[in-house]
Order: sequence, then structure tokens, then C-alpha cells
Amino acid sequence: MTYQLHYWPTIQGRGEFVRLALEEVGAAYVDVARNGGADGGERALMADMGDPALDHPPFAPPYLVDGDLVIGQTANILLHLGLRHGLAPRDEAGRLWVNQLQLTIADLVAEAHDVHHPVGLGLYYEDQKAEAARRAEEFRTQRMKKFLGWFETVLARAPKGGWLTGTALTYADLSLFQTVEGLRYAFPHAMKRLEPKLERVIQVRDRVAERPNIRAYLASDRRLAFNTEGIFRRYPELDPA
Amino acid sequence: MTYQLHYWPTIQGRGEFVRLALEEVGAAYVDVARNGGADGGERALMADMGDPALDHPPFAPPYLVDGDLVIGQTANILLHLGLRHGLAPRDEAGRLWVNQLQLTIADLVAEAHDVHHPVGLGLYYEDQKAEAARRAEEFRTQRMKKFLGWFETVLARAPKGGWLTGTALTYADLSLFQTVEGLRYAFPHAMKRLEPKLERVIQVRDRVAERPNIRAYLASDRRLAFNTEGIFRRYPELDPA
Repeated sequence: MTYQLHYWPTIQGRGEFVRLALEEVGAAYVDVARNGGADGGERALMADMGDPALDHPPFAPPYLVDGDLVIGQTANILLHLGLRHGLAPRDEAGRLWVNQLQLTIADLVAEAHDVHHPVGLGLYYEDQKAEAARRAEEFRTQRMKKFLGWFETVLARAPKGGWLTGTALTYADLSLFQTVEGLRYAFPHAMKRLEPKLERVIQVRDRVAERPNIRAYLASDRRLAFNTEGIFRRYPELDPA
Repeated sequence: MTYQLHYWPTIQGRGEFVRLALEEVGAAYVDVARNGGADGGERALMADMGDPALDHPPFAPPYLVDGDLVIGQTANILLHLGLRHGLAPRDEAGRLWVNQLQLTIADLVAEAHDVHHPVGLGLYYEDQKAEAARRAEEFRTQRMKKFLGWFETVLARAPKGGWLTGTALTYADLSLFQTVEGLRYAFPHAMKRLEPKLERVIQVRDRVAERPNIRAYLASDRRLAFNTEGIFRRYPELDPA
């Protein structure tokens, strides 16, 4: 069975959290819109999402087609993949905890996006630079520290094993890797200041990067580069040295 | 077994989505911080959340204590309660769909909050009124319509029965009720313009309000009033007639 992943074809964005899970488990999947090229892929994605025959229309990409299932919302897709592919504990308490970790990453990701779009999702960054500068300061000096510090605490209290839940890798570890990568790209100076106190978080990042399937993926042309169209964006004025 | 709900004691906020589910099923629960009064309750909540003995510390309220489980993130709490109390389908596809609906409500709720706090979560509204006015315009004229219109489409495509998934009430219906109530409070003029095209959404709202346990809850002093400390806030300048 081949999964269909539907996401914007030119950015990592929220789709990347799903791609990492699919790549780690070696799942067969098609990244549908990328096959249509930049423009054609976007048009096809919009058309597919608006298909009136869908009983469960997604509100926004990414969404995953798994046979008859059309699953939207990143954390929801990962909940499904985690269960299918052993990327989450099988017991209820463990599943809920990994979902909670993922939803907290989703909150951080949404705030990282709001930094460059504080007053209008539909406006360009260039039309809200002053507001973005205000929002970025709080994000760099308070929110990043609070979120990443929380993950450091979670790791400090976890059973031994080096992953967020102890000895077994979960999709939340893959997502934490992606979060660190995104923040390093968008806020390199702020991260440099924070990382000395994030030893365990960075260890998770490093261990994910060394997984054979992830390493192969990151070296492939399936891994898009970060850019200033995605969720994590590098605008030097938002991250002073 | 009595649940413990931990949430800020003076606002509906995200805790209200959990309260509605608990009330609908008649679950025994204690709204812990409210027993400590406004100030004492907040202090106790902060202390409890920071307890170093917690293996699964919540990042933020609300969180629910269910025996040995400490569950954070609103949608995650509802995923748990939905399964326990028949507020979600038992099959996997149905459970995922209700979770997806709830996560989309969570996105809308986060945007409703961002309207009055576009550039700083830690700043007062009074310190970001100009930015809030810009953000509010897009929220009123585009985002509310997009989100609520999506729920109207979902209801139009659902099996007959009048709820989001057809014949059975789920926690997502309760949350849609709360969303409509919050938006009517915060953006009465914008809602008045939108509601003629949201017939099915408003029907869900009305049917939830008529559930015996919900009706009793709304008439009780357990239901806090909306106010300008919560997520949905009425600032007349953000919702012109």
C-alpha cells in the first residue's frame, strides 16, 4: 500500500513532520504535488482539496491518503502513522503523552510562523516588518526558551534511553529534530545562545540525524531546503547577533 | 473516580472545551483552581504545574488528572474523554476524523487569541492595539468565514443526523458550540453578517444548548461569563458595526 502525501510542493512546512515519519519507517509514499512541479503541483493540490466528493475534506495541507482514509492535521496524521508503524507506544498512556508532546511542538511551530506574519496571514512579510520585529523579540528571548526548556525538562525526567519517552524512538523525537533544524535556520543567533542549556534536546536532534533512513533522506533530493516561503524563515533583521 | 481539571480559575478559555465534555457526560470532576479563589487558585495552579515530581509535566493549562494519568493539551484531553465516555466514534476512522475536527477548532481558537495579542503574548492588549486592529480585520473578513464555512461544508457532507459526524453527538460538536458562543461574544457584528450562511453550524450550536446537562451547566454558577481576560474578548474597536 502506497501512501499519498498532499502538501505544498516547494516548502518543508508542516508536511516535513509527516515526511520524516514516512522516511524513518521506510514507508512507500508519493509526495503528490511535487510530481506536478511548483505551479502545477499547487494548482492540483488546491483542486484536490476542494473536491466536493470528499466526505472528510481537509481544512488545509498536509493531508495523507491511506486507502479509504483521508487524514488531515499534522498531529493527527502522525497519531495514525505512529500506531501503524511502531513510532508511538502501544499503551494508552504512552500514546496520549506522545500526542501531547506533538501538540506542544505544533504550538511552537505556529508561533514560529506568527513571528513573520503577526498581523495578517494573507499579507506579505514586507507589509508587516515592524510588527514582526516586535513579535520576534519576544519569541527569541522568551517563547523559544520556554518551549525548548520544557522539552529539556521532559527529557531529564524521562526513563533512561535518550528519547523523549525513554528507550524507543517516537514520531515526537523526529518532530523535535525538525523543530531544532528549523529554529537553527531561522534564528541562528538566538539558538546559539540557548543551546548550551539544551544538551538533551540537541542529543535527540543528533541521534535522529544519524538514523540510517533519515540520513539517507536528508542527503536526497526529496529533502527540500529551508527557504523564506516556509514556516521557519531566516530574516536576519529578526535575529540580531 | 473523580477527575481533577486544572485550569485558570477566572476564565472560560481552553478549559471550557473540557468542562463542556465533562458536564455533558455527567462526569464527577473538581475544577481544582476555582476552589482556591482567583489569586490563590492561580498560585496553586502554577505550583502544581511546576511540581518536579511530574513525569509528564504539562506545558500549559488545561490539564486533566485521571487516576495516574496527567493529560495536557485540550484536544488530547478530549481524545481521552471521548473514548472513555462515548463522545467519539469507536472505529479508528471516526476517531481520527473527530480529532481532526477538534484540531481545526484549536487552530481557529488560537487565531481568535492572536487577534488581541498579535505581537506579544506577554504584552497587554493596550500595548498592541494598532497591530490588533490590523489583525482583527483579516480575522473578521476572511479567517472566521473560512473556518466556519468549512464546518458548514463538513455538516453538509455528513451523514444525516444533524451532528458533525451524523447521528451521534461528539466532543467536536460541543466545541463547535463553544466556538460559536465565543465568536458571538467577541465579534457580534461580524457573526451577524456571517450567520445567514452558517445554518447548519448554528443548528449544532442550538442543539448543544438544549442538551439537558449542558442547559443545566450553562445556568449554573460553574459556567463563568466571557470576559476580557479569556481567549475570546470583546473589544468593540475590533468589531465595527
